Amino acid sequence: MLYEINEKALKLESEGRKIIRLNLGDPDMATPPEIVEAAYAAMKAGKTKYSSSYGEKKLREKIAEIHGVKAENVVITPGSKWGVFATMFLMLKGGGNVIVPTPYWTAYELIAKTLGAQTKLLRTELEDDWKVDLDKLEGMIDKDTRMIILNNPNNPTSKVMDEETLDGIVEIATKRGVTILSDEVYGAIAFTKTKSILEYDGDCKHILSNGFSKTFTMTGWRIGYIIANKLLVDNITKLNQITVNNVPVFIQEAALKGLELREKISSAIKLEYEERAKMASKTLAKAGLSFSQPDAPFYVFPKRPGLDSEKFTLDLLDKGVAVAPGTSFGDYREHFRISLTAPREEIKVALDKISEALG
Amino acid sequence: MLYEINEKALKLESEGRKIIRLNLGDPDMATPPEIVEAAYAAMKAGKTKYSSSYGEKKLREKIAEIHGVKAENVVITPGSKWGVFATMFLMLKGGGNVIVPTPYWTAYELIAKTLGAQTKLLRTELEDDWKVDLDKLEGMIDKDTRMIILNNPNNPTSKVMDEETLDGIVEIATKRGVTILSDEVYGAIAFTKTKSILEYDGDCKHILSNGFSKTFTMTGWRIGYIIANKLLVDNITKLNQITVNNVPVFIQEAALKGLELREKISSAIKLEYEERAKMASKTLAKAGLSFSQPDAPFYVFPKRPGLDSEKFTLDLLDKGVAVAPGTSFGDYREHFRISLTAPREEIKVALDKISEALG
Repeated sequence: MLYEINEKALKLESEGRKIIRLNLGDPDMATPPEIVEAAYAAMKAGKTKYSSSYGEKKLREKIAEIHGVKAENVVITPGSKWGVFATMFLMLKGGGNVIVPTPYWTAYELIAKTLGAQTKLLRTELEDDWKVDLDKLEGMIDKDTRMIILNNPNNPTSKVMDEETLDGIVEIATKRGVTILSDEVYGAIAFTKTKSILEYDGDCKHILSNGFSKTFTMTGWRIGYIIANKLLVDNITKLNQITVNNVPVFIQEAALKGLELREKISSAIKLEYEERAKMASKTLAKAGLSFSQPDAPFYVFPKRPGLDSEKFTLDLLDKGVAVAPGTSFGDYREHFRISLTAPREEIKVALDKISEALG
Repeated sequence: MLYEINEKALKLESEGRKIIRLNLGDPDMATPPEIVEAAYAAMKAGKTKYSSSYGEKKLREKIAEIHGVKAENVVITPGSKWGVFATMFLMLKGGGNVIVPTPYWTAYELIAKTLGAQTKLLRTELEDDWKVDLDKLEGMIDKDTRMIILNNPNNPTSKVMDEETLDGIVEIATKRGVTILSDEVYGAIAFTKTKSILEYDGDCKHILSNGFSKTFTMTGWRIGYIIANKLLVDNITKLNQITVNNVPVFIQEAALKGLELREKISSAIKLEYEERAKMASKTLAKAGLSFSQPDAPFYVFPKRPGLDSEKFTLDLLDKGVAVAPGTSFGDYREHFRISLTAPREEIKVALDKISEALG
């Protein structure tokens, strides 16, 4: 339904309707001008040629420094989604299965399906504060299990995994010889400390997926990275060589500029989204909805018992507000996802319409 | 050996040696400034968000107009290589084989291998003016043959396929129900008219792969396209959605600017490369090498009976000139490939060194 809602929103807009778009994780803010200028300067300096399928040395070194790994453990990808795909492509050759806690970013399951692998969904609930049940997780692992995919902080709940649970997952995965792919694209701008998978694992047995989209408002630039053991990094690079080749060097220079300014840029983004989250929490609580307080940008994932969120979402769109039904993130019909990716005054109007529609 | 030569060239350069780099198809010229400025204007206008996995409407329409197809037959890809990979990924699911005339761009075979498909190589020879033997081709098709991949004009020979042969290949493919993927990235800047696969086929039964790298000196920008039937375009788009998502919109705007200025840009490029090709032909003929006159930028693929081109290439590199051995393009040990992608004065020096080395 995620694509259907978006298509319908675009259609209504093309008919002249004003739609407040809270259905995607695409920030309303512009890419910081320093980043744009860095890209332009690099283009003018001729950084428009073929380049390494590993990514630029300077960028890999900077990322390695930030995460406390070696540059040889870093490969630059055209978006973090490509990093996830490439990792799954290489690890799920010949089938197998992958365990994914829900609610989840649907791309994981779509990729697995496209690669002929099976996805085993591990349900978590708002009422348990979205905690992964470790016994259930261990019970799901079988001889064909190749990976566990974590999304921490989570899309759509904006929940950061508590350390005890993460410790437990890593322990089980390590014991059972299953690799964790930890997608931490919201990690650097979380409101609370997010423990990274790399903190367990100086040797990069497990895998980190990350990107510049969310932290630096660079969604459409398509740049991310994988941190992994050298063998996987080399294999992703070989896959890059026969597919995407390289991320444009001027985009890598722009991303490097972002990293240099990351304290300034990410603290401004965090502050803005924390304000938006507070505002949303207040209104949604007043409307009688249940939800967990967001630990990170950009989402709230409220629940109303008995709600048919697909119908609700379509009706709400007719009232000029686009959100995403819970069914887009697994079997969560009573939930819907609000992306706080619009200016505050628009979010306010939208929240009032949501409250009104819920009656 | 292609990568080995390049790595060694980079290493020698880092040690302070001057290397004339004629080993890659990456032009020495800068991307035209109008294209750079169009990208910058688009970035500043906020065209830095997520966008359609089909590509931008305006760009698809312009490409459709140029090729005489519908916009729904066009999908934008991050480089033509991604277009080739995506097409092969979708068409070679579950194995099968693909027929590729040699000498060839090795990526085709590497992709097939990665996807678990078999490549059947169809040898052509300089002595036959690189003509495909139609009987041999037909004899190679079996029940598992899914595709024939043509590269027209060809890398490394710079030969444009004669119309009669192409007619024959299309006839055989159509009769036997095999799809042709025609990689025509050098087509728009060929010195002689190149008949496109689309001229046979208003319904896009066969597939065109094309890109902006060569025509517009945009190698590192990573933008290309596939023209195919709507079903394949839709399926590539679905694959884009779970992998690369979209080519940055500002890069698509830059490419559109290129297309608007294509007469001017491509005629300047053609002219320059025709001069370089003449210069190279003269010197190489004088050195007693056999080769076909280039019909297109950027390559010459000369032969010297008895030559061990791998040894020759490595020795030449020590003398300051990087070229590629024939073995990088199939079983062509007596050939080597010169890319005329350096300023004329450098090419001249390099050609003299090549003549000298051949003795």
